[in-house]
This record gives sequence, C-alpha cells and structure tokens, in this order.
Amino acid sequence: MPPTDGEAERKIIPQAVIKRLSLYSRILQDLELENVEKISSADLGRRLGFNSAQVRKDLACFGQFGVPGFGYYVSDLRKNLRSILGKDRTVRVILIGVGNLGSALISYHGFTKQGFKMMWGFEAQPEAATQRVRSEVPIYHVDELESKIQGESVDIAVLAVPATEIQSIAERVVAAGVKAILNFVPARIEVPEEVQVRYVDLALELESLSYYVR
Amino acid sequence: MPPTDGEAERKIIPQAVIKRLSLYSRILQDLELENVEKISSADLGRRLGFNSAQVRKDLACFGQFGVPGFGYYVSDLRKNLRSILGKDRTVRVILIGVGNLGSALISYHGFTKQGFKMMWGFEAQPEAATQRVRSEVPIYHVDELESKIQGESVDIAVLAVPATEIQSIAERVVAAGVKAILNFVPARIEVPEEVQVRYVDLALELESLSYYVR
Repeated sequence: MPPTDGEAERKIIPQAVIKRLSLYSRILQDLELENVEKISSADLGRRLGFNSAQVRKDLACFGQFGVPGFGYYVSDLRKNLRSILGKDRTVRVILIGVGNLGSALISYHGFTKQGFKMMWGFEAQPEAATQRVRSEVPIYHVDELESKIQGESVDIAVLAVPATEIQSIAERVVAAGVKAILNFVPARIEVPEEVQVRYVDLALELESLSYYVR
Repeated sequence: MPPTDGEAERKIIPQAVIKRLSLYSRILQDLELENVEKISSADLGRRLGFNSAQVRKDLACFGQFGVPGFGYYVSDLRKNLRSILGKDRTVRVILIGVGNLGSALISYHGFTKQGFKMMWGFEAQPEAATQRVRSEVPIYHVDELESKIQGESVDIAVLAVPATEIQSIAERVVAAGVKAILNFVPARIEVPEEVQVRYVDLALELESLSYYVR
C-alpha cells in the first residue's frame, strides 16, 4: 500500500473518493467533540460501513497520514482533510430558485454546519420568497443575478428553479464566472467542460430502499 | 468473472451496488425511449462514468444478463432490474413533516417519475401545509399517523420534521409497522436493526464540489 502514494497523487482522484473524504471528515469532527485523540483505520471504517483497507487506500490517495500499528491522530487528520476538501477557507454559495425546495435549502442547517456561507438567494418573486423563508440570507430578483455576482467571488451556485428554466439559468451563472453548480432539478444541463456539475437526485435513496422492502 | 454468480447471490449485496442498479435502470429507461435495442457494458458504463468491468461485476451479483461479445438487451435488462429493485409493483410512501423541505418532497416530480406512490403527508399544522403545497396528496394532522397507517401497507416513511422531533417520530412510524425510513433531517435516529434507514445529506454533494473549486 505505502509506495503507491506518489503515483496516486499524479492521477485524477475518483469522485467517489472525494465523497468519502467528506464522510471521514464528519466522523473526525464527532470524534474531536468526544475528545478522542486517535483512531484506527478499522474503527474509522466501522463507523461508516467500510473496511479498513478501503479507508487506508482512500487516504493514501492524498499522502501518508497514518502511523502503522497505531492509526491516525484525529485532529491532525481532520485538519488535513479539511484542507484537501478546500474547507480551510469559506466556500461562498448562492442559491437560485427560492420556491419550496429552495426555501428549505437557503436555511438548511447542514450547509452552515459544514462551513458553507450562503451569500444570496435569487428568485423571480423575491418578496413572497423572503416572507416564506424567514432566513437572514437576502433574496434578490433573479434579474439582479449578474450585477450582484460581478466582482464577487462566488464558488458554487445551487440551482432549484423550475425544470423549464434550468438550462438558461445554468448558462447565466456560467457566463457570470461561476465554476461549480449543484443542481437539485431532475433535468440535465449542458455547460462547458471546465464547469463542475453535480446532480442531487432526491429519489435515488428512495430507490435503494425499495430494494429492501420488496 | 462468470463462475462467481452463484456465490455472489448468497452474499449480502453491498448498498453501493444497489444504488448503481438504480442508475443503470434509469439509463436503460432513456435508451428504451430512444428505441435502442441493445447496449454493451462499455457503453452502459460510459454513460455513468464507470468502466465496463464494474458494470459486468455489478450485474453479475444478480444473475447472468449479458451475452458475451454482444452486450445486453435493453428492455429485458430493464425489466429484470426493475424487478430486482422491487419496482415491478407500486412502492407506497408517506411523508412526515410538510414544512419547506417536505412541501418540495411531497410533489417532487422525481418520485412519481420513478414509480413511487406518495400516499399521505402528516404535519402538525396541516391546513397551512395544504395551502403551501398545492398537491393532490392529502395532508393529515400528525396525531392521525397511527390510525391512518393501521391496516394499510406503507413501504417507506420519508421524514422531514424538525431535528428535535426526529427520534420520537421515527419510533412512532416503526411502532406502526413501517420497515424503511428515508431521513432528510441532519440528525441520526435509533431504530431496531431490522428497520432500514437511509440518510439524505443535502450538504454532501456541496462538499465534494468544494474540493474542485479550491
């Protein structure tokens, strides 16, 4: 396992590994709160349903963090993972579409808890949306999208607009310089290759559950 | 690869494989609409970012579907996967908590599109929720949970209640006989081992994006 680190660093890291890093990072956050100082790859894996080899292999993609026969120092590993995930600085997020789903997202406790800063919401009916959400995040008319973004560094745009508008909204945020999109709308979008897009499919977990209730 | 089928069937199928089955099933649905009759494991994988060996290995967990050197018959494979996923019958779902997020979920197009039947919503303030959602799904007071469920077969309960209420609501749906829970609340719940629980973490995809925008 150890000698492949250098080689792995030159490779593109699979998305699935990046996702698991978030999971590791959260467990480590819990462990710190419980004042746990070190943890083995087996224990770390057990908390997430992975085996120890998987944990070691995932972390080895990014460097040599563990001490053989000892495990990982919790707070060191957490600091490293946060830095790898780009979370040692504030990640600035905007939301477009503050309907029912967007209203839930703009004040979603899980975002702020994980260090994301929700900057602004944009909506075709901003007054109604502002009444609905009771959040501190200001909500602007979607016409103001370009003028608000300009000159500000926005890392990620979260999209929760009607499916019929998703492509044109995606093009507008990309033209305004946003390089990453999180799409909650069950419709594909086409953007230039350098823009990162992730789809959140709320029905996918439901499907995997239906397998178990046959 | 071929001779391991029988052995694999006796094993517990990893959750990740079940999740990928949903993805395969969706691609096959699209292919059917495009009148495509057959597809290779390489092409199927390419549409999802997996390699052909992964596709063959995943499908081999459930039987021998492909024809070597030819690929898969689209509509046969889709029918098989739907049956494996328990989707050859209607999967009956209820929603508890019809706030902002719940309002989005109760009328989420992605659920009905994938063959789930949203039966009822339950909410502490059912009148306000009914006004908010403009959905055809009836919304009852949460006090009526047990009496509505009794004698009906409910497959999955989707939870979108405040975090402070999640454990007591989970216990009530389990006591009422529901065997699977999809939890949208960023809080863990404790239920008997035989109850399947999945957590939807809306911040997880955001985290994996933050890696790319460092």
